[in-house]
Amino acid sequence: MSEPLVGNLLVAQSGGPTAVINASIAGVIQEAGRHECIEEIYGGANGILGILNEELLDLNDEKAKTIEGLKHTPAAALGTCRYKVDFKKKPEKAAQDMDRLFEVFAAHNIRFFFYAGGNDSQDTAHKIHEQAVARGWAMRVIGVPKTIDNDLPHTDHCPGYGSVIKYNAATVMEIAADVGSMATDDGSCCIIEVMGRAAGWIAAGAVLAKRQPTDAPHIILLPEIPFEEEKFLARVKETTGQLKYCIVVAGEGIKYPNGEEVGVDKTRLDAFGHAVLGGAADRLAEKIQGKLNLKTRTVKLGYAQRAAAHFASETDALEAAACGEAAVRAAVAGQSGFMVKLVRLQSHPYKWTTDLQPLGDIANVEHFLPRDWISEDGFLPNEKFVEYARPLIEGQLRLPMEHGLPKFAVLQKSPVEKKLPPRA
Amino acid sequence: MSEPLVGNLLVAQSGGPTAVINASIAGVIQEAGRHECIEEIYGGANGILGILNEELLDLNDEKAKTIEGLKHTPAAALGTCRYKVDFKKKPEKAAQDMDRLFEVFAAHNIRFFFYAGGNDSQDTAHKIHEQAVARGWAMRVIGVPKTIDNDLPHTDHCPGYGSVIKYNAATVMEIAADVGSMATDDGSCCIIEVMGRAAGWIAAGAVLAKRQPTDAPHIILLPEIPFEEEKFLARVKETTGQLKYCIVVAGEGIKYPNGEEVGVDKTRLDAFGHAVLGGAADRLAEKIQGKLNLKTRTVKLGYAQRAAAHFASETDALEAAACGEAAVRAAVAGQSGFMVKLVRLQSHPYKWTTDLQPLGDIANVEHFLPRDWISEDGFLPNEKFVEYARPLIEGQLRLPMEHGLPKFAVLQKSPVEKKLPPRA
Repeated sequence: MSEPLVGNLLVAQSGGPTAVINASIAGVIQEAGRHECIEEIYGGANGILGILNEELLDLNDEKAKTIEGLKHTPAAALGTCRYKVDFKKKPEKAAQDMDRLFEVFAAHNIRFFFYAGGNDSQDTAHKIHEQAVARGWAMRVIGVPKTIDNDLPHTDHCPGYGSVIKYNAATVMEIAADVGSMATDDGSCCIIEVMGRAAGWIAAGAVLAKRQPTDAPHIILLPEIPFEEEKFLARVKETTGQLKYCIVVAGEGIKYPNGEEVGVDKTRLDAFGHAVLGGAADRLAEKIQGKLNLKTRTVKLGYAQRAAAHFASETDALEAAACGEAAVRAAVAGQSGFMVKLVRLQSHPYKWTTDLQPLGDIANVEHFLPRDWISEDGFLPNEKFVEYARPLIEGQLRLPMEHGLPKFAVLQKSPVEKKLPPRA
Repeated sequence: MSEPLVGNLLVAQSGGPTAVINASIAGVIQEAGRHECIEEIYGGANGILGILNEELLDLNDEKAKTIEGLKHTPAAALGTCRYKVDFKKKPEKAAQDMDRLFEVFAAHNIRFFFYAGGNDSQDTAHKIHEQAVARGWAMRVIGVPKTIDNDLPHTDHCPGYGSVIKYNAATVMEIAADVGSMATDDGSCCIIEVMGRAAGWIAAGAVLAKRQPTDAPHIILLPEIPFEEEKFLARVKETTGQLKYCIVVAGEGIKYPNGEEVGVDKTRLDAFGHAVLGGAADRLAEKIQGKLNLKTRTVKLGYAQRAAAHFASETDALEAAACGEAAVRAAVAGQSGFMVKLVRLQSHPYKWTTDLQPLGDIANVEHFLPRDWISEDGFLPNEKFVEYARPLIEGQLRLPMEHGLPKFAVLQKSPVEKKLPPRA
């Protein structure tokens, strides 16, 4: 694995964007520039999908200032996709895709491949690594972790997570001030729906808004804890009885004890066949208004929470960039088939480093909130979670501003000349 | 009107909070401290409702640092209400309320009364002014403008408005980057629902996110323009055909040509008898998915947008404080029965001042977006609007931070001793 490999680099992004995934790409590009064995630096447009179409971007053609600007630019600057090379469900298609990918790698002498994404993307990276070995194509493959859901195993946390919970916690504080100031005898309730799918990490993060026991959020509904309607309504009633208002944070993926999702719309599936979520808050509001006759409003932050660079965590952005840099250093040092992971050295003061984990340990394994990080009644994460999460939101990304709004970097995206016939 | 009036001051807040209404209260308190004719400085807890209950707060007992901190603290620090003294619908109750208010004013020697709020609140202030004259109670009454909806007449704009459109425009930019980076051949759409009731000022403000013609938002649905489904779907299709994605901003109060609101839930009314809005985005998403078969996600910012101090406009906060100060100076100078208004002196560079407008001109008059500030096809505000709105979002409020989150001011709220029997 330690032959002096020389050739071109290809980096791509996959899955849902985050506020800091571009910082990882900037880390890859900037670190790559420091190694002579890396010749051209290419980006794959829209992840694997663009690579299959031989849509490569010449990143050496971008201004250094633009690359640095990616560190405060949300979303996926190279474009992303939810395309999966699925050997289980579509083995024939997957084999064709794999052949095509290696044609593209060979045509452009790709010797260093980096894929930033979550569980599905690490699975794709793992398969590409295995195929490279099987096909005898000398190429180093390293996964770069990325997911607001924070559900990748083996890494202390995932780049993208700190920023989403920082923004969400500030939003909960602000909404609580608003609703609390309208608190009159009638009482009122506000339900804030947040992302995270089946994992409660994002919902749990809202607890950072709580500085006093009576502070919001008063209830956090985690997908890990079965949703019991009577118990929930009783807690809402108790809270409004005491404070005259109640702020509820609900994970989009909360489930009834029978496993059915509270907010799911089963008629809609995403490209990976997962059910589309996003109605939990409205369903809960109907219950509260119907059964407690309590004025209830909902907030659905949706994409706003994962794209909120204007209030991103500086710690998160630094870690995201470091993961990109570490991926390149590992590949140059001869490693392949690993994902970069974040390792916490200590919490007070917070110290961290990066390390590597075999991709085979990561792919398609989901990491959930441990039960002993949640209060006994299941309505709030406890001190163990707070100690874990608090360092991740420290510091605020400073954005350049223009006319009162953020100024984001925009890649010029010079296409690399195609050398292959179009994909079949 | 110019007798040297000496006595106590009472300030209260009413209606929905904003990110900067507390800055107006800070302006009132700080300016009051500069005038010897003002003895005690009281706050009414939860607006008129608290005053009727003789729930007054001793604001001279608060630390100067806390009062200064109100300038970056969202929501209504004194508490607010939606209670209306309604002579039209409930004349007997209104007369009782008015008697009680003047008992409270007399018991606490209130000679300067300031009420910060929107249309309904200015109407209340107007009635209190008229009653003071009719009853021969020497008291100066000045309204302080406040509404994110920006629908008060005679003032160039309303404190609270600049902050909500700054936050919303940044959010649209971020969501657009996110959705745009996922844009593949299938196309996708995101609908962002914003506040503003029947007025399109807030929805229009999202246009500030647009720097290039192809930038989001691609469509803004304004309540002033009747919603025509076919025309809208055609525009969505055209946009996704061209860009592979489409960002729609929808005002919560958009209406069909027959006047029916797209997102209204007629089964729910607020305290003023207005229908509760807030389902427009979901209704539009159903149409787009059903008729165009286009993946569509919704974002409902709700209270988050009006409470977002973490990204408030510095210009807005300065103007809000100045309105509070101007109200006190006007009252001390002998004026009563006016609302402070903002007057634009020029747009480039932006210069403004404050002036007074009789409350009788304000109460219950709604100010809508002029038709000639909207594109001919009705889907976007034009350059006239942009010139108007752009200065209002300049500068960013700097918040003190603690553990990565904003640190807001909290009043200790020392109650003023009651002198009256409880309200009948």
